[in-house]
Amino acid sequence: MSIIVVGSVGLDSVKTPFGTVKKVLGGSASYFSYAASLFSQVSLIATVGSDFPKKYIKLFNQRNIKLDGLSQAAGKTFSWSGRYGWDMGDPETLSTKLGVFADFCPKLPPQYKKSKHIFLANIDPELQKNILKQIKNRNSKIIGCDTMDFWIENKRKKLLNLLKDIDIFFINESEARQLTQEPNILKAARAILRFGPKKIFIKRGEHGVLLVSGKHLFNAPAYLMESVVDPTGAGDTFAGGVMGYLAVTNNKSINTLRRAAIYGTIMATFAVEGFSLKSLQKATLTKVKKRIKKFKKLVSF
Amino acid sequence: MSIIVVGSVGLDSVKTPFGTVKKVLGGSASYFSYAASLFSQVSLIATVGSDFPKKYIKLFNQRNIKLDGLSQAAGKTFSWSGRYGWDMGDPETLSTKLGVFADFCPKLPPQYKKSKHIFLANIDPELQKNILKQIKNRNSKIIGCDTMDFWIENKRKKLLNLLKDIDIFFINESEARQLTQEPNILKAARAILRFGPKKIFIKRGEHGVLLVSGKHLFNAPAYLMESVVDPTGAGDTFAGGVMGYLAVTNNKSINTLRRAAIYGTIMATFAVEGFSLKSLQKATLTKVKKRIKKFKKLVSF
Repeated sequence: MSIIVVGSVGLDSVKTPFGTVKKVLGGSASYFSYAASLFSQVSLIATVGSDFPKKYIKLFNQRNIKLDGLSQAAGKTFSWSGRYGWDMGDPETLSTKLGVFADFCPKLPPQYKKSKHIFLANIDPELQKNILKQIKNRNSKIIGCDTMDFWIENKRKKLLNLLKDIDIFFINESEARQLTQEPNILKAARAILRFGPKKIFIKRGEHGVLLVSGKHLFNAPAYLMESVVDPTGAGDTFAGGVMGYLAVTNNKSINTLRRAAIYGTIMATFAVEGFSLKSLQKATLTKVKKRIKKFKKLVSF
Repeated sequence: MSIIVVGSVGLDSVKTPFGTVKKVLGGSASYFSYAASLFSQVSLIATVGSDFPKKYIKLFNQRNIKLDGLSQAAGKTFSWSGRYGWDMGDPETLSTKLGVFADFCPKLPPQYKKSKHIFLANIDPELQKNILKQIKNRNSKIIGCDTMDFWIENKRKKLLNLLKDIDIFFINESEARQLTQEPNILKAARAILRFGPKKIFIKRGEHGVLLVSGKHLFNAPAYLMESVVDPTGAGDTFAGGVMGYLAVTNNKSINTLRRAAIYGTIMATFAVEGFSLKSLQKATLTKVKKRIKKFKKLVSF
């Protein structure tokens, strides 16, 4: 099964206590598609500028990620610059330059309309909705979606409208609280379910992931890491692992979703071990399964 | 098997977003002994003032907690007053009045020297060391110990000296970082093991507990709660559950320690559902086991 992902492909400049990188591959759709492509065929819909390095196109090609939907426009590629403190929590954004992304109006190539698995990575909820409108037989699809604090604050109504049509919503713990004004995370999850999504993954950073669907709860524990070099993209990588696993198993039962959460968690552990997609590139299916085995041993009782 | 606990019995005044209580039963040894007594015989060594309400003595009696070592001195009972914010994280201390606790110089009654299980709840590391000196055949005992940020800051050397003789050290995540100056929690745990303790439980509040011993790691996940009314005493209750379970099983294998961590976690969930020991009183062994079953379902994959 194939997944369509719509989101950002950008160039990140990141400073953490463990190093600094400049203008390296980043963006929600990059992390997502790279992670998902370990499991499934991925088609990437995004836009980059004329400055976008060819080596990153090669990187996508190596994973057979379909790039028919990746437009290259005159101008600069979307770029983000941020800095992490010792707690490796939320980064401080130093600059965001939209570049060609400012005019991004994603169109679904006709051959993609059949795809059953769609992921709307973190972009303007109006663009996300726009993509949804291009999809026929929406009810038979598995539609995942992510967002961020900026949209919750500035496009709340549009976001709530979008959520009605979402199967699987991915959101950070702090954003879940922000969206619902509810400090208790379980109550916040239930409140979000009332907005429409059938399932929610609440990403709790180094504290694991919470999956809530109806009355079903799964608290996927955290995988303890000795070395976190750069948390950028962890959430998108998680979503890529989840959606990729769902696409390859082609079912969305609760037990599959639980396993998908574990695959997503482990994919994210690879992502944060290095800057950009460097460490994620080392994640083979064998290595991922080996780490899951170790994880199971770490948390079972 | 019987456990000796040395620590504080006090009167707490607590304000949380869910209510306010004044001069209710608190103190590290109170929570610990109440939790541990669900599993094992407990002997409490502490001191209270002449103002200590008889109803709390009754409460200890109901659980057959031995009070030969609880002295009552002329003066006021130790009292603490604190306030929690919406995050229910670390409380803001409004006042600490030592009262008779200022002159507390715990002596081990001779009949207790045979006990195999000893817990040194959070008090001055010099007093903790003093207790240790009174114990013969220390090597054949299971000695647990807790501490707090105040001692790490003000009596670091004494604490490090104490840790050489400790089997099982209980410490909060932030305190583990403070003690080792190491932000990564796994590295911090390993650094603490080098100070002497054979096993460490790092308490991560609502994010679970980490057990580290040699190369062995167990990341006990958190039990998600819909309602936390007052987190006071959660850590001491956890330790009580752990040490109580170890005493009744009378072994300290890694698998027993893992199960003990789960019992401790579940005991703590009861403690935080109400003020003081109110909700903890409702925790029967049947209810605890039922909650563990639910917990297992919540986190297994």
